[in-house]
Amino acid sequence: MPSFMGDPMQTLDLNADLGESFGAWSMGDDRSLLSVVTSANIACGFHAGDPSVMARTVDLALEAGVALGAHPGYPDLQGFGRRSMALTPQEAHDALLYQVGALEAFLRVRGARLNHVKPHGALYNAAAVDARLAGALARAVKAFDPGLILVGLAGSELTKAGEAEGLQVAHEAFADRAYEGDGTLTPRGLPGAVLTDPTLIVDRAVAMVTTGRVTARCGTEIPLRMDTLCLHGDGPHAVAFARALQAGLAEEGRSLASLRREAR
Amino acid sequence: MPSFMGDPMQTLDLNADLGESFGAWSMGDDRSLLSVVTSANIACGFHAGDPSVMARTVDLALEAGVALGAHPGYPDLQGFGRRSMALTPQEAHDALLYQVGALEAFLRVRGARLNHVKPHGALYNAAAVDARLAGALARAVKAFDPGLILVGLAGSELTKAGEAEGLQVAHEAFADRAYEGDGTLTPRGLPGAVLTDPTLIVDRAVAMVTTGRVTARCGTEIPLRMDTLCLHGDGPHAVAFARALQAGLAEEGRSLASLRREAR
Amino acid sequence: MPSFMGDPMQTLDLNADLGESFGAWSMGDDRSLLSVVTSANIACGFHAGDPSVMARTVDLALEAGVALGAHPGYPDLQGFGRRSMALTPQEAHDALLYQVGALEAFLRVRGARLNHVKPHGALYNAAAVDARLAGALARAVKAFDPGLILVGLAGSELTKAGEAEGLQVAHEAFADRAYEGDGTLTPRGLPGAVLTDPTLIVDRAVAMVTTGRVTARCGTEIPLRMDTLCLHGDGPHAVAFARALQAGLAEEGRSLASLRREAR
Amino acid sequence: MPSFMGDPMQTLDLNADLGESFGAWSMGDDRSLLSVVTSANIACGFHAGDPSVMARTVDLALEAGVALGAHPGYPDLQGFGRRSMALTPQEAHDALLYQVGALEAFLRVRGARLNHVKPHGALYNAAAVDARLAGALARAVKAFDPGLILVGLAGSELTKAGEAEGLQVAHEAFADRAYEGDGTLTPRGLPGAVLTDPTLIVDRAVAMVTTGRVTARCGTEIPLRMDTLCLHGDGPHAVAFARALQAGLAEEGRSLASLRREAR
Repeated sequence: MPSFMGDPMQTLDLNADLGESFGAWSMGDDRSLLSVVTSANIACGFHAGDPSVMARTVDLALEAGVALGAHPGYPDLQGFGRRSMALTPQEAHDALLYQVGALEAFLRVRGARLNHVKPHGALYNAAAVDARLAGALARAVKAFDPGLILVGLAGSELTKAGEAEGLQVAHEAFADRAYEGDGTLTPRGLPGAVLTDPTLIVDRAVAMVTTGRVTARCGTEIPLRMDTLCLHGDGPHAVAFARALQAGLAEEGRSLASLRREAR
Repeated sequence: MPSFMGDPMQTLDLNADLGESFGAWSMGDDRSLLSVVTSANIACGFHAGDPSVMARTVDLALEAGVALGAHPGYPDLQGFGRRSMALTPQEAHDALLYQVGALEAFLRVRGARLNHVKPHGALYNAAAVDARLAGALARAVKAFDPGLILVGLAGSELTKAGEAEGLQVAHEAFADRAYEGDGTLTPRGLPGAVLTDPTLIVDRAVAMVTTGRVTARCGTEIPLRMDTLCLHGDGPHAVAFARALQAGLAEEGRSLASLRREAR
Repeated sequence: MPSFMGDPMQTLDLNADLGESFGAWSMGDDRSLLSVVTSANIACGFHAGDPSVMARTVDLALEAGVALGAHPGYPDLQGFGRRSMALTPQEAHDALLYQVGALEAFLRVRGARLNHVKPHGALYNAAAVDARLAGALARAVKAFDPGLILVGLAGSELTKAGEAEGLQVAHEAFADRAYEGDGTLTPRGLPGAVLTDPTLIVDRAVAMVTTGRVTARCGTEIPLRMDTLCLHGDGPHAVAFARALQAGLAEEGRSLASLRREAR
Repeated sequence: MPSFMGDPMQTLDLNADLGESFGAWSMGDDRSLLSVVTSANIACGFHAGDPSVMARTVDLALEAGVALGAHPGYPDLQGFGRRSMALTPQEAHDALLYQVGALEAFLRVRGARLNHVKPHGALYNAAAVDARLAGALARAVKAFDPGLILVGLAGSELTKAGEAEGLQVAHEAFADRAYEGDGTLTPRGLPGAVLTDPTLIVDRAVAMVTTGRVTARCGTEIPLRMDTLCLHGDGPHAVAFARALQAGLAEEGRSLASLRREAR
């Protein structure tokens, strides 16, 4: 039974979504992000990425020495996988398998191994609250490779489904979002839902890792696992944030480190 | 060095393109074809097939006990992969890897193993005459799994490229097409280019297998390997043809059998 | 203010979704359906149809002398536009304009005029209950051509939005579905939700047209406009049903007739 | 019979390809280009552009007061329409109609009128040399609106086909490319094929407009119509080039001006 929470030696994984260019269109500053993250979630062609972008991104990520994961999404290029789509659990299962298999081919030809799977965008959000969908995705990941780490929103249906399937699960939490007393994210519309002060966000991230707790909007302290944190934003800001985070963790004797597949 | 030609025990593989439905659209009578062929080439989503069609087709093919192969094509659903597209060799390499990896995922979760790769339509035709493209595809197949069999037009640039890479290669020949003295297919526009008499076609197929030769349009006998024959057409006719072929081979002490991966 | 209901001379439009083939994939028996319907809803390339299918379908429909309408859907070929997708109202507005404009080009080059717009599948269903989406679609139709008829589920948000925009609206009702007391369709899961007896369905359709009312599942008579009825099913059954419907209407002195654009 | 060549009052149209973003991916600096060009070729969704991008681009171009044209391409998002694809002339005809109709919808709802059609990328190149394809495209443009201006490579099969159909045609020439004695572009591989000195390019453009001639690589003067010039490159450089061009033309008493539809 994997457990990172409360581990005095706990490290934090810093992940970023990469390889989200498509054909002639560029997106993101993959090289900058790869200089600071510990895990790369690589788009698999349905919401972004194409076979040649994937090949290049895998090479870049391997050079950078980070852990490589698949980042499957809904089949919606125009919407960048951010528009919810009513796929049946079976369709989502099959779409995930397809994308993970496709990405894995580019790792395999480099002699590399896939470390994790993190669904993208609207699929990630849907799987956080829809137990049947979450179960279908977790089963697909397990069937493909039971040693893969499933990354999902902390304490969500997706992490629950992964745990129920016996998968190693990484809980993703957000240092720049307020939480409600029940552990859910404060909806974006509400005042204070999104934090913007970089120093505060770094402090909050460090606190979440070291204490396994967060202070909710109402003032109560609630337990919250954060095994991994997603790095957003453009290159320079993202890099500055990552360096500050690393320094903050160091002061607590912690560090950034990739999620690590267990032997299975 | 693999060699099937002239083998007195040579068997013939009978392959069919399967899983070419897409979403709500059906195509082909996969069940009928699977009752007679020895190899299935399964579409991988670029010219036909979608993840759920692929999942179902893999299951059907495994039930039928045939050898399973990937059937990657150009990214052109509307054109069904039959319109030539100017992909660079690198783009074609990456597109093939992507598709083969995607299909392999559906086999892997069933504990099955991919046997061969046969490019589809315009990609097959282009790889038969374009040595750089052929080389790129052969390298992609080898990098993914050096034990895979590469299926291409007999004596084409694709089979040459596969052999140059040290891959096991299956030469596909056409029993219903006339050949020129140089071993190329007589262009469809010319008189007599396409044979239509089923009995004649069966006899021709049997002769090609047993002699390793074919009589070209000009009357000369030329060497022609036929390791595998593609079964086209709708269900009932295809099944009748396959049964006649099986009977014809039996009279010569031969039989239909899947291509077989060698241990590597 | 357009009003068909209660008109003693009311005719019924019989519509069918056509042109839903795509590339090499065929769907439906368009010729049979065109021999009996009075309106054709032609797919516009997002959920089905491609430019060449559209060109052929427009020609077939013009030959058949039926009214031609656009049948725009979500951009989801694999799901055939039947999976709900979270497009913003603006995205849906733009997607509808795009598709209607594309289809209209094929009519224009034949000197023909577009008669109506009927959204497809999940877009139709979403627009029936989502007032903001419905408003966006109605505005797009009006902006493109204020003389177009907007076809929607009878009494839905879509027909309301069309009426609010001053568009001519056609209410579509279902003779093979049970209705609740509030005028909504009985959910498919409930017993008796779907009628299957062809005679009963025809009688019901005739009654809906002649009385402007339907008996709901609970026994109450409720008002229900039916300006148009959608013909589903394969060729032979659909044709038989259409003939029976025509005969049933004739007994009441009514007939099938296309929706007719008013001069604006 | 339209003729711009040798017209002492000839103006030059400066066109740019716009609206080539797609979904979440941005491309180009449309605002900067619109501040200097006289015509906008707007992508229509097949190689770039999506309905919402098209709506925004039409609005931007109308604000800028330039002439609006359609920029249809091959159905190949990943390849950005730059990979040749073997569409039949009929398929290309239908694909062009579809795209032009789709774009025209966004103009129509703004009360604006389409001015021209310029095929994109590999479709433009194929239509420059393939008379059957060129004829199919010219017929599609004429059938849609005989008053449209067809933009093609100067002296190519496409401009010939447009002239044969009686369309108004705009010849596009390249001031930054060398020409051979027969009026074709010097292949990019050859030395001197591409000019890079901005001053030289401006001078050359002005000379082409004022003399209707260009000095070929071999030294001979050959006739070459340039009704329109395509502005490439990123924002700042493109704007600087456009300003220099405008100044150069002014010295000769010429100016930049949109192509102008004749009354038909």
